[in-house]
Amino acid sequence: MASKPSIPKGTRDFSPAEVAKRHYIISIIKSNFEKFCFQPIETPSFENSETLMGKYGEEGDRLIFKILNSGDYLAKADAVLLQNKESNKLTSSISEKALRYDLTVPFARYVVQHQNEIEFPFKRYQIQPVWRADRPQKGRFREFYQCDADVVGSKSLWQEVELVKLYDSVFTELGLKGVTIKINNRKILSGIAEVIGAKDKLIDFTVALDKLDKIGEDGVKKEMVEKGISESAIEKVQPLFYFTGSNVEKLNQLSVLLASSEEGMKGVEELRFICDNVMNLGLNDAVLDLDVTLARGLNYYTGAIFEVGSPKQVTMGSIGGGGRYDDLTGIFGLKDMSGVGISFGLDRIYLVIEELNLFPETVASVTKALFINYGEQEAFYAMQAIQKLRSSNIKVELYPDAIKVGKQFTHADKRQIPFAIIVGETEMNEGKFGLKNLISGEQITVDFEGLKNRLLLA
Amino acid sequence: MASKPSIPKGTRDFSPAEVAKRHYIISIIKSNFEKFCFQPIETPSFENSETLMGKYGEEGDRLIFKILNSGDYLAKADAVLLQNKESNKLTSSISEKALRYDLTVPFARYVVQHQNEIEFPFKRYQIQPVWRADRPQKGRFREFYQCDADVVGSKSLWQEVELVKLYDSVFTELGLKGVTIKINNRKILSGIAEVIGAKDKLIDFTVALDKLDKIGEDGVKKEMVEKGISESAIEKVQPLFYFTGSNVEKLNQLSVLLASSEEGMKGVEELRFICDNVMNLGLNDAVLDLDVTLARGLNYYTGAIFEVGSPKQVTMGSIGGGGRYDDLTGIFGLKDMSGVGISFGLDRIYLVIEELNLFPETVASVTKALFINYGEQEAFYAMQAIQKLRSSNIKVELYPDAIKVGKQFTHADKRQIPFAIIVGETEMNEGKFGLKNLISGEQITVDFEGLKNRLLLA
Repeated sequence: MASKPSIPKGTRDFSPAEVAKRHYIISIIKSNFEKFCFQPIETPSFENSETLMGKYGEEGDRLIFKILNSGDYLAKADAVLLQNKESNKLTSSISEKALRYDLTVPFARYVVQHQNEIEFPFKRYQIQPVWRADRPQKGRFREFYQCDADVVGSKSLWQEVELVKLYDSVFTELGLKGVTIKINNRKILSGIAEVIGAKDKLIDFTVALDKLDKIGEDGVKKEMVEKGISESAIEKVQPLFYFTGSNVEKLNQLSVLLASSEEGMKGVEELRFICDNVMNLGLNDAVLDLDVTLARGLNYYTGAIFEVGSPKQVTMGSIGGGGRYDDLTGIFGLKDMSGVGISFGLDRIYLVIEELNLFPETVASVTKALFINYGEQEAFYAMQAIQKLRSSNIKVELYPDAIKVGKQFTHADKRQIPFAIIVGETEMNEGKFGLKNLISGEQITVDFEGLKNRLLLA
Repeated sequence: MASKPSIPKGTRDFSPAEVAKRHYIISIIKSNFEKFCFQPIETPSFENSETLMGKYGEEGDRLIFKILNSGDYLAKADAVLLQNKESNKLTSSISEKALRYDLTVPFARYVVQHQNEIEFPFKRYQIQPVWRADRPQKGRFREFYQCDADVVGSKSLWQEVELVKLYDSVFTELGLKGVTIKINNRKILSGIAEVIGAKDKLIDFTVALDKLDKIGEDGVKKEMVEKGISESAIEKVQPLFYFTGSNVEKLNQLSVLLASSEEGMKGVEELRFICDNVMNLGLNDAVLDLDVTLARGLNYYTGAIFEVGSPKQVTMGSIGGGGRYDDLTGIFGLKDMSGVGISFGLDRIYLVIEELNLFPETVASVTKALFINYGEQEAFYAMQAIQKLRSSNIKVELYPDAIKVGKQFTHADKRQIPFAIIVGETEMNEGKFGLKNLISGEQITVDFEGLKNRLLLA
């Protein structure tokens, strides 16, 4: 191999500094999941193809990474398909497994497969990578982590309240101020569709309405008409063009607007429960905002829909999302299991925290001191001290080779190790250690206890 | 989908209890890696096929999971290969990516790719899953975690000393007593081959010698002769049949036996450095044992070879292994980079700890108390208390639905939640909480401070 090796596009190597930052975020998400009494599960990286295929729409099916069968995978393949090079039709006969595309379908599969061992309602969290053969771009990768918390087996709206609180708790602990938790309800959207008399135009309607800030009321209306929504229909939902105020005020407007739609009114009632309780319990740093243009995952959500927007000073897509499915596990044959959950977008949260400079300086596990290596005997003396320091949980190491001292100091500098410990013949014979502060340049001679105490305090 | 869903053979779902136990082991390994100043990196789950293929031998190539190209993957495939169904030859034209097979090759690739950003010697650790299309059996899976620590860029034998100490430190912290760290050196094996005058028979020789305990001296010699090793050659290494005593004693015997082999004597010298220093520094619960039959990974190791045997009361293959490669990164074009490292076999360590009943009882994150749900108003009162308790890091939750109280208590029982908190109308109006110990059955009424303090102490 002559050329420098590389990795597949859309994938990433993570350096020690990056791993430390990612684990900092993950550990905060995880500790909050556990504080809210979610329990961890893990599922295999690949599933049987039939478990995944057909669950994410046609686009999704295309973006699922398929694993080639082992051994003589062509043996049983259809000769005609091979000859005609019909890739699509051939796939199922040469590939039986596929990489996880999200954590929700595997969770549904897990619940059905282990239903007899699970005590419902079941609050589970899962933090694992997923893979998508998507076109890579800023903040979008072919391998990325999802961090999901879901509850299955209860229709209680207290779950939605809890999930909003959970978002708030995580983002507050991360120091991310100004996060907006947008909320909507599938039933509100159905109600709007009913009122405008055009169920099939719902997405066109919400997409257009979402542009209000950018293209103004006239622009939005023009686009709606172009998409085939009648002017009289638009007239009926006129209040949505002036849809501002508190969540309570918005809900009051909606309950007038959707009065004729039973389903719409059910949505208003659900949202009122969630918004009222969240307001009365209070949030720390996040804001809950009712947004009727939020139509995320319209195909599968049946109740609440969530999406989290990053603080306004950062340009970034959503950093989280979720919602309620009334029939989470029906695809695998277990009926009437309502599920509701949220997801944290680790990669984008990372980018936001990086941009706002919110990573604590202490996030990486850094060597506290490097013992300079003066030769075999001195190194043994150093190793004795090192193992005692480590048993006090102080991270110290020996430079492995007795090379020129200057080079060893340069190594400590480059690795930003704050202290060097000098153990030449003199120090060794006196049972002492030379402790040099590599930032101030100050050097003192101490015994082992002095060394330990100074490193513990440093 | 009519039948109950399943997962691919050789893969596993992990329940909350299993995840907790796995993370307990991983967290101990990780904290020791960091204590010994190794730094974490992560690499993508899949690599370009050319990075992996040809690195693990023919058998390895077969066991690597290949990922089917996206889109119309047959378009550029060779028509003749398709027609003749030549699976092996076709693979490279329809699959460009493959799942990680171990952590060593990706590490070597990482080092070469990022050589300009890395300050050498580089001590890295990596804890990630790998995949092998192996036949599944007890303790062997198609997806499993490897936990590796390697140093690259120094030939110092202090690294080997450190790695032995690292093994000891992890197994001691896990409470695993009686672990044997077997050590050998590739140069000792070469020396033996030189002395018996049969380099190509080395593996046959060590495999036969390894059976000494089972089939006795005569049996071993018979097998050696059958494999074509001459009786006079066997005569020359006669002392290996009585190879007992301390590591020092064994090394003294080897230095006589291998006196004529320069390489063999180099091996003795290296092992003496490692064994002496480990002995003088001392181990906690593990034992270091020189084992000349240890020939693990003969193809790539050039210096020390390690393998860890589980405590004798458990029947289990090795729970760890490693060694030194003098040319770790040469395959990717970076010469003269010596590497040495060890790996921990998470799955087998799990099985050993489980069998010896050494998992701490507190390993799972368990809900401390379940608030019984008596209706909307009471639930809101409960939620106020819940959020205050959580801010003190006490794990409490509300049963989401106001169903029959008996059923809620049954839920708490089944989940082994130790306390139920009763907040009916009376408690709510008095600002109190009924705290019921679900093990003793005892119930008391307390105010919020009393509740918090009792849960903190429980």
